[in-house]
Amino acid sequence: MHEPAHSWRRTLDAVADAVAPHRGSGRVADYIPALANVDPQFFGMALTCHDGDDAWVEDAEVAFSIQSISKIFTLTLALRECGDDLWRGVWREPSGTPFNSIVQLESDKGVPRNPFINAGALVVTDRLITCFGKDQVIGVLVEFLARRADVDIRVDEVVAQSERETSHRNLGLAHVMKGFGNLQNAVDDVVDVYCRQCAIAMTCRDLARSALYLSAEGRDPIDDEAIVSPLIARRINALMLTCGHYDAAGDFAFRIGLPGKSGVGGGILALVPRQLALAVWSPGLNENGNSLVGTLALEAFVRESGLAIL
Amino acid sequence: MHEPAHSWRRTLDAVADAVAPHRGSGRVADYIPALANVDPQFFGMALTCHDGDDAWVEDAEVAFSIQSISKIFTLTLALRECGDDLWRGVWREPSGTPFNSIVQLESDKGVPRNPFINAGALVVTDRLITCFGKDQVIGVLVEFLARRADVDIRVDEVVAQSERETSHRNLGLAHVMKGFGNLQNAVDDVVDVYCRQCAIAMTCRDLARSALYLSAEGRDPIDDEAIVSPLIARRINALMLTCGHYDAAGDFAFRIGLPGKSGVGGGILALVPRQLALAVWSPGLNENGNSLVGTLALEAFVRESGLAIL
Amino acid sequence: MHEPAHSWRRTLDAVADAVAPHRGSGRVADYIPALANVDPQFFGMALTCHDGDDAWVEDAEVAFSIQSISKIFTLTLALRECGDDLWRGVWREPSGTPFNSIVQLESDKGVPRNPFINAGALVVTDRLITCFGKDQVIGVLVEFLARRADVDIRVDEVVAQSERETSHRNLGLAHVMKGFGNLQNAVDDVVDVYCRQCAIAMTCRDLARSALYLSAEGRDPIDDEAIVSPLIARRINALMLTCGHYDAAGDFAFRIGLPGKSGVGGGILALVPRQLALAVWSPGLNENGNSLVGTLALEAFVRESGLAIL
Amino acid sequence: MHEPAHSWRRTLDAVADAVAPHRGSGRVADYIPALANVDPQFFGMALTCHDGDDAWVEDAEVAFSIQSISKIFTLTLALRECGDDLWRGVWREPSGTPFNSIVQLESDKGVPRNPFINAGALVVTDRLITCFGKDQVIGVLVEFLARRADVDIRVDEVVAQSERETSHRNLGLAHVMKGFGNLQNAVDDVVDVYCRQCAIAMTCRDLARSALYLSAEGRDPIDDEAIVSPLIARRINALMLTCGHYDAAGDFAFRIGLPGKSGVGGGILALVPRQLALAVWSPGLNENGNSLVGTLALEAFVRESGLAIL
Repeated sequence: MHEPAHSWRRTLDAVADAVAPHRGSGRVADYIPALANVDPQFFGMALTCHDGDDAWVEDAEVAFSIQSISKIFTLTLALRECGDDLWRGVWREPSGTPFNSIVQLESDKGVPRNPFINAGALVVTDRLITCFGKDQVIGVLVEFLARRADVDIRVDEVVAQSERETSHRNLGLAHVMKGFGNLQNAVDDVVDVYCRQCAIAMTCRDLARSALYLSAEGRDPIDDEAIVSPLIARRINALMLTCGHYDAAGDFAFRIGLPGKSGVGGGILALVPRQLALAVWSPGLNENGNSLVGTLALEAFVRESGLAIL
Repeated sequence: MHEPAHSWRRTLDAVADAVAPHRGSGRVADYIPALANVDPQFFGMALTCHDGDDAWVEDAEVAFSIQSISKIFTLTLALRECGDDLWRGVWREPSGTPFNSIVQLESDKGVPRNPFINAGALVVTDRLITCFGKDQVIGVLVEFLARRADVDIRVDEVVAQSERETSHRNLGLAHVMKGFGNLQNAVDDVVDVYCRQCAIAMTCRDLARSALYLSAEGRDPIDDEAIVSPLIARRINALMLTCGHYDAAGDFAFRIGLPGKSGVGGGILALVPRQLALAVWSPGLNENGNSLVGTLALEAFVRESGLAIL
Repeated sequence: MHEPAHSWRRTLDAVADAVAPHRGSGRVADYIPALANVDPQFFGMALTCHDGDDAWVEDAEVAFSIQSISKIFTLTLALRECGDDLWRGVWREPSGTPFNSIVQLESDKGVPRNPFINAGALVVTDRLITCFGKDQVIGVLVEFLARRADVDIRVDEVVAQSERETSHRNLGLAHVMKGFGNLQNAVDDVVDVYCRQCAIAMTCRDLARSALYLSAEGRDPIDDEAIVSPLIARRINALMLTCGHYDAAGDFAFRIGLPGKSGVGGGILALVPRQLALAVWSPGLNENGNSLVGTLALEAFVRESGLAIL
Repeated sequence: MHEPAHSWRRTLDAVADAVAPHRGSGRVADYIPALANVDPQFFGMALTCHDGDDAWVEDAEVAFSIQSISKIFTLTLALRECGDDLWRGVWREPSGTPFNSIVQLESDKGVPRNPFINAGALVVTDRLITCFGKDQVIGVLVEFLARRADVDIRVDEVVAQSERETSHRNLGLAHVMKGFGNLQNAVDDVVDVYCRQCAIAMTCRDLARSALYLSAEGRDPIDDEAIVSPLIARRINALMLTCGHYDAAGDFAFRIGLPGKSGVGGGILALVPRQLALAVWSPGLNENGNSLVGTLALEAFVRESGLAIL
């Protein structure tokens, strides 16, 4: 059913070769100083299969800022804790406008289009604060990831502080939603927790391992722990497919065809349902804010592996 | 690998039972008289498997107006004829606004968001006119469908005429695009062909059979005819997943998780890649313009069959 | 109360001197060939006072395409014929978006923001067709202007034809409104009449003379003919002040402070209520589509004459 | 040139009679508790002429919350202190969308459309903080008004506190602008001062007296103090005409034709340049957020007095 790990390594090597000429391309996110200083030459990729096989290449063991990839983990926790109540405060439609847009938010009376745009992720974080308390959310999240990946996970406090200092847009979004009655907690608390969740640092290896349950109907196939129901897992996958890449979700589906979620730190998490989870990282971004080399690498991976769900 | 046909029949019977209490719900499209008069009690469903097995229930042999489902077939033909040139005139992103919206079109300088919103479908039709001539496009399309389904296919000229008489919005969209230089042919010709393609009448059985190639990497698994390359087939699937249901694409992916395309006639075509194609029809629409009972039926089908790609 | 004519001439001479260094600046409208070929060096200015005194400088006797300035005369005729019924189909608010924008039209369900944006002017023309018949409107309008200015007025058929051939945006607007039920006549007829009204050619002298009634509470102070009621005249003035300059109405009010209406042919008509009407023409446009030198000339006129209503 | 005061009193009496049947109509602003409790039966009107004559009726000596009318006084101070530098951070175009809209702000990269929408007024307040310091602005403003009206002026601290507690939308606007670099001071300080300026309480009599300089080319005609240059005064008038009434500026110009500025407390200030200033107050608002009875009263005043500038 699956190939041995040394073959996956060969696939990743082929991917690394394919993207080698492009390494360093794209533009490193510069909206916060802590991200702007990352070397654009970094490139890492890792995958973990349901049977425990794994493979990785290049900088797959260097920790980077997962940024918006954190949104799939907060969504997992929120759906597990709040259930369908969450959907009263956030839709699940592609946004059709750039990821931090406030326009749609206003015309939709404070209810964001989906949980992966910033406004929607703030709602998810707000609900987690309601469940766990503002001082506990990051601890719960870090512990969740640490248990999945079986490693220590940390928040990069320099990045978190840097995010906080440049979070006017997110504060704006949060105040607009608060004005519409769609936040249950104080704006400053929500944005503070949000800045810290984005500043979590992880490696490609740990990220692929952590998200494996999402490719396996909600149950981690290695430690056999049930994280969420098959229905919830499938729905998170669906959201990643339709809304996982800001205003380039359609293009990502068109070119790669797998559920995925990107972050402005240059990471992308992708899933091959019923088979494996995979993470790639390269800091240079394309015009849509997704990793330029990471996207190319995923395209090469689909081509080299022949894996597809469509 | 697959179950025998009598079992599929049982699945469809279970689906029909599940939706029976809802039959007649929703609102029949009333923007053209010819559609407004259709009995909302109609409900049909059919599927065709790669090995030739098929099954159907209820009104699956009654012809209905396929409307926007025609867009996946014109897209197939345009990608086969024009190749990637098509993408200079239409994007592939979810639209984030209702299906006939002119707003996005203006801010994007005449280039529609994707080939399944009306504006994008008009561009596709325009390119087909360039390839085949305005008097040939409908013939080419009807012949293509007739050959796939091995039946006669016809345009309902009463519906076509009715569409033409109420096509001011489409004429508006087309003129705006013409003003931006994104139509190669006369506005009236493009809208006229578009009205006729939407007025094609097909049954659920014929529709499922016709679209089978899209679930099979572009090659019809029954007559073994290559229609489009695996890459093009996968990309059309991706577009159906992200953009196939107007402003409810995210919700459809969330609830059903399969590539699909709906029409205001009440039909929905859905695909289970590598396995089967399936069509459902019930005229009453939900608030997003998709078949209300048809959507429930597809949800029930996924639940009953256990089929999923996510 | 007013100064003798030779003094007005001196004022206009001072204005001409002030703008001399700028003549030829701006960009001649190039969306239709017939306008693109006009020499940008042209500059003319004329005024007519309530007591019959008049004055003019430079190219004030050269006919130019009045374009959107025609909208104040069609509005005059429509308000005289339709009365307040007109306001069911068009609002009277500044638009906040560029003059040919379709966005606002869609969100406002086919009712344009005001009668001076293209969509609103199409509604006005539509109502005139209902009153007078499609073949009569231009005749009625030309006769009205000819009687005001006591000269022959003609439509430049080369410009009209050129407008028709590039009128996709206006056709788009008209079809959208027709789709919303806000046009009473055939789209092609409305746009055809509109193209012809915009192609009327007049001199600054004739334009100032024709519009004199608007500065005099609706009654021409020279031939003492009552055109519209004082209330209607005042309201047209108010619309000129708030909506007369596309997306630069605020700036025009800020800099000049008089009711005015510009056209892309480079003409601007302005009024000093209770005193005089004034027309300026110079073909080069600024970024908002208003005559660059014409706007400077009006600023200089206000400064030199000391006339103000605010 | 002007009529004696007893005649103005007769005009105001006629106005009061005309609006008597409508008193209590409209909807009192309910977004803050402190405003929601005001009795909708209140109606007051006052005017002050250049020669010192004045007149008033009914509740013209009851203090009310001037709210957005404060914006004309902060604009006066900012233009006097900052000069044209202010216009780098705020435009002067009608907004075309409701007064607290964030949409336009985003598409215009943080620069508000004009100084009378909330976002623009926040910019004006921000610049005053830069000039005077955050703890001084309200003092400077109150002193300015007290000197104009020769009475004590106070901030209603209950209203101010109430505003602060419900200012999420303004905080959202301010953070978005801060994110675009268009605020020089801390968001909380700007919104705090803004809430206090809106909570200034004044009577119709004092308001008309305070604003007299704006109807008199910037120089108070009674105490002969020069406040701003004639050019600045005229420009503030122009902004009142084009942008003074949220999304109903066009309608106000159409119906009343005078420069005016309204507030959600139910007050409206209007000017007859070269003649008088006038203030009306009635708490019930129409659908655009302007005083319903106040607007009717101004219409009646224009009709009764025959005063007009258009």
